[in-house]
Amino acid sequence: MDLRPIGVFDSGLGGLTAVRRLMQRLPGEDIVYFGDTGRVPYGTRSAATIAEYAGQDCRFLEKQNVKLIIAACGTVSSVAPHVLRQAAVPAFGVVEPTAAAAAAATVNGRVGILGTSATVRSGAYEQQLRRINPSIQTVAQACPLFVPLVESGWIARDDEAAVAVAKRYLQPMKDAGVDTLILGCTHFPLLSDIIRDRMGDGVTLIDSGACCADACARLLTQQGLASGRETGGEGRFFVSDRPEDFSAVAHRFLGREIGSRVLVAHAEEPAICP
Amino acid sequence: MDLRPIGVFDSGLGGLTAVRRLMQRLPGEDIVYFGDTGRVPYGTRSAATIAEYAGQDCRFLEKQNVKLIIAACGTVSSVAPHVLRQAAVPAFGVVEPTAAAAAAATVNGRVGILGTSATVRSGAYEQQLRRINPSIQTVAQACPLFVPLVESGWIARDDEAAVAVAKRYLQPMKDAGVDTLILGCTHFPLLSDIIRDRMGDGVTLIDSGACCADACARLLTQQGLASGRETGGEGRFFVSDRPEDFSAVAHRFLGREIGSRVLVAHAEEPAICP
Repeated sequence: MDLRPIGVFDSGLGGLTAVRRLMQRLPGEDIVYFGDTGRVPYGTRSAATIAEYAGQDCRFLEKQNVKLIIAACGTVSSVAPHVLRQAAVPAFGVVEPTAAAAAAATVNGRVGILGTSATVRSGAYEQQLRRINPSIQTVAQACPLFVPLVESGWIARDDEAAVAVAKRYLQPMKDAGVDTLILGCTHFPLLSDIIRDRMGDGVTLIDSGACCADACARLLTQQGLASGRETGGEGRFFVSDRPEDFSAVAHRFLGREIGSRVLVAHAEEPAICP
Repeated sequence: MDLRPIGVFDSGLGGLTAVRRLMQRLPGEDIVYFGDTGRVPYGTRSAATIAEYAGQDCRFLEKQNVKLIIAACGTVSSVAPHVLRQAAVPAFGVVEPTAAAAAAATVNGRVGILGTSATVRSGAYEQQLRRINPSIQTVAQACPLFVPLVESGWIARDDEAAVAVAKRYLQPMKDAGVDTLILGCTHFPLLSDIIRDRMGDGVTLIDSGACCADACARLLTQQGLASGRETGGEGRFFVSDRPEDFSAVAHRFLGREIGSRVLVAHAEEPAICP
């Protein structure tokens, strides 16, 4: 029985979709979230910059006495997995569990990958999928407009702009005949309806947040790190800039209201200012 | 005759549209550009963060021995004009010259403002317009999707996604009956065709880059800072991350190829690494 919290970080607030899945899957675990809203987005930055930020994010969560770290950030998971291996506690990103779920789901062996520019440039999902099954064929698409669409709340099934953007990004996936599509950025599950409408029922969408929650549950059991509680887990939330935006979007991403206070903290500095 | 360069900075590469106007207007002036691509976008950050970054950007340009600084960044100009007043050389942003041009252009006294979230939140254009003419009515719209649309190159007149996004952002402008529309972010001139199609010929678009170039020309003459050359001005370009992206988009923003090398520099650090 280990009552320390699970640490989750993301470049911004998208990682809250993974927290939502974690809260559903492990309602007895406490969670500390750090959203690096002061430096979002990571997805357009260089590999060196992303690695530096990811290391600072891990150090911040370690100081919060977490027992495990999840990088709920497709970009960090793809570009800087070595940084996660250097953490003081077990740490993993979205790529490995998500690729495993996609490899298990595909029937025709054709898997599509949607991600940020950095995720797609890294080729991390392709490498991981081929490690699991070398015969899997992949097609990847960077979707830089999906994040601001979600953050603007333009996610309704009939949203003209969102549908037009999705149409463009998804055409290569349809052309390639994928039967499995990885939503490789934690923002993208909020566009699931639009993506599903466009891809059709024959295509399985793989939500990286849900895959992370499953992987986390397994790891806690394997390593004897579970809290042992069935309910009562609480969330603490830190952001590095504009905490006032948090309450506006947290409900959409988390699917629930947050009673807890949101604190401002900078990953690169030791101080935490309420 | 002052052969020192003009300094221009922006949070990213959008400010190159202002450099383009400067090169057309003042072909005998050297220009040093700093694009803070390592920390882009500023537009979603807090006022304190924006002010801190703007100060560092000014210090960086001062070290390049510039004679004048232009903040070709709607966000800095709106949120942190006090930082520009503290620079060691004359410095100005896009708001004052752009608001002056809009106030001169409007006939019906209704002016629309398109900008980033931070620019719109600041109310800077409204304040400046009312200072010039208290009877001017304004309507402002934050356009967070315009920047990634431009950076994706989805700017063709018939681009389905760009047209759908523009339709949404411009409806409040049409409803308000504006006859003058400020493009209050240096990215937006690349969407001029789409915006003009939607607004109609009766609406004057005010390009903040062009207004800055005019203001710069006046200031150089007034303060005796002009180079005295008619041609031969050269550009030097610094970015704080991903210089490889620069050449890809610079042509689109600048309207010409850049012979010069692009250097990597961090505004917050003294060192410049080639």
